[in-house]
Amino acid sequence: MELSDLLGQTSEWLKGTGDSSDIVVSSRIRLARNLEKIPFSHWANEKQKKQILDIIKPVVINHELMKEHLFCIIDELDEVDKNLLLERHLVSKEHIQPGGSKAVVIKNNETLSIMINEEDHLRMQAIKSGFNLQGAWDIVKVIDEDLSGKLEYAFSNNWGYLTACPTNTGTGMRASVMLHLPSLVMTNQINKVLQAIAKLSLAVRGFYGEGSDATGNFFQVSNQITLGYSEDEIIDSLSRVIKQIISQEKQSRINQLNNQRKMLEDKIWRAYGVLSNAKVISSSETIDLLSNLRLGSDLDIVNGINSRFINELFIIIQPAHIQKVAGKKLNSAQRDEKRAEIIKDKLKK
Amino acid sequence: MELSDLLGQTSEWLKGTGDSSDIVVSSRIRLARNLEKIPFSHWANEKQKKQILDIIKPVVINHELMKEHLFCIIDELDEVDKNLLLERHLVSKEHIQPGGSKAVVIKNNETLSIMINEEDHLRMQAIKSGFNLQGAWDIVKVIDEDLSGKLEYAFSNNWGYLTACPTNTGTGMRASVMLHLPSLVMTNQINKVLQAIAKLSLAVRGFYGEGSDATGNFFQVSNQITLGYSEDEIIDSLSRVIKQIISQEKQSRINQLNNQRKMLEDKIWRAYGVLSNAKVISSSETIDLLSNLRLGSDLDIVNGINSRFINELFIIIQPAHIQKVAGKKLNSAQRDEKRAEIIKDKLKK
Repeated sequence: MELSDLLGQTSEWLKGTGDSSDIVVSSRIRLARNLEKIPFSHWANEKQKKQILDIIKPVVINHELMKEHLFCIIDELDEVDKNLLLERHLVSKEHIQPGGSKAVVIKNNETLSIMINEEDHLRMQAIKSGFNLQGAWDIVKVIDEDLSGKLEYAFSNNWGYLTACPTNTGTGMRASVMLHLPSLVMTNQINKVLQAIAKLSLAVRGFYGEGSDATGNFFQVSNQITLGYSEDEIIDSLSRVIKQIISQEKQSRINQLNNQRKMLEDKIWRAYGVLSNAKVISSSETIDLLSNLRLGSDLDIVNGINSRFINELFIIIQPAHIQKVAGKKLNSAQRDEKRAEIIKDKLKK
Repeated sequence: MELSDLLGQTSEWLKGTGDSSDIVVSSRIRLARNLEKIPFSHWANEKQKKQILDIIKPVVINHELMKEHLFCIIDELDEVDKNLLLERHLVSKEHIQPGGSKAVVIKNNETLSIMINEEDHLRMQAIKSGFNLQGAWDIVKVIDEDLSGKLEYAFSNNWGYLTACPTNTGTGMRASVMLHLPSLVMTNQINKVLQAIAKLSLAVRGFYGEGSDATGNFFQVSNQITLGYSEDEIIDSLSRVIKQIISQEKQSRINQLNNQRKMLEDKIWRAYGVLSNAKVISSSETIDLLSNLRLGSDLDIVNGINSRFINELFIIIQPAHIQKVAGKKLNSAQRDEKRAEIIKDKLKK
């Protein structure tokens, strides 16, 4: 598979299927693992990092789940391609910073990606569409178990899996769910919800993970504690909270439909009107408007536009994707024009 | 003619025809006249006002130009109908305030309307589409001359026509032109233009005349001096200024097309997008967006929508018109919904 092939497909996790996919965009499980007797990537010298890559790469790319895959050395990619991977949530922001022997292996359908020489030697993540942490865990568990038979993981009987940052030690697991909560935002209930989440030792992040703001009413909720609980316990306790948030967003949508239907319809149709007519549009405005359109589709206020279509738009309107489609580097003003053109074309269909 | 028949027609002055109709919506000439030996309307008692009406009415409605007309006693109209006349620029704000024996005679095609017992006994106005002060003057001159043969006008050889307010004494003429100047507004040149106008002893008002703000980039420019110049001189000097403003707006539009075309297209198409999709919209937002759409039509950025259609929309989206179309009284929120519905329907066609 070539990197540019990604453009022609919809990531599996964007398909808009799965439980509660009107509210939960995707579910993700990430495991951090390190090899024994080699320094963590940040402390390793170039030779050691090369060694890490050489040990891990063959084991990963030869795994059954990775039969069809894309392998990239990060430093060999240009800026646009690096950001393309970031925009598709296949690598972290940190991972695309320069640094020898960083690599990523991506399963063709984008449900599974494995970063090599990120903060930890191995970062494995599985993403599923909708509310399906178990589904993501089932994938990542298989490859983790198989890899553990072929690689010597740094593991302590006292602490569990050892990681570069102590916040990952233990299970090395980060389970996260991307939620779309427009109604809780619109009705000013979101802060109460976020405060409650914080009290439960869960973290809330934006659309692009760590360090990103909540944009387009998307919130990524994940566990903060990795130590002292089993993987199943972590998934279970996160799931219980997510179920509550889902029911609050659902109830809020019902209330709005009952009490503010016109206002809601207005907001949603105006978003459609601007998206399908603008000639210049920024990505942040686009994301806000697409958020409204997604709500409109979920509430059957706008018909003929499904979640998959909108989820896909969220990805392809981002800067690197725009430039990939245009086939050349574009400055910000040029991207804003091209973005408007792409959205218009897509909505016309 | 019935008052409700107005709804089914486009006022002649909204037809979007005539010179420079891309910038000049309409041209208007208004004459103030009073009868000899009867106090001005504000000083007259009810009996005298009745007398004024009784003297003027038959002369006006029997005039050749008023063969087909609508006659209304203001106090006999309900609030919606009064405002309907105001929104169509057929009466002044002051004229629809309660007060016995106020009346208006309107020529069927709305080019000529004569208020009786406004501030002056007689206020005659002719409106023409586009830049055509002479055309309006030709109409109003005819009826004024004919009426002067049948009514005894209050006239002083020293001062000319006597009027309730000294600012109208002399010719009693107010010549005004409604300009649409979106490009001068967008490019922040409008204040310089307005300051220059003020220095020339001209007045600038908004869409609804005296006391109204400039809305939707409409500016009504009129003479302030009525004394010491002939009617032709007043028209001539106003026309010269208007021609300059027209050429400034034209030049500004050309500059914008050359240097900011995308921004302009974006603004115009977004206006179209919102107007054709909103479910709730206020009249002030509508006027602003229609202003952009009018510019888009004038610059051939939006095709298939002509000035007449947009001019008409400006009128029918106003509160009294909305209620007339709905056939019942509506509160502000209900009007905002109905307005969105009407605009959407019109734009669909």
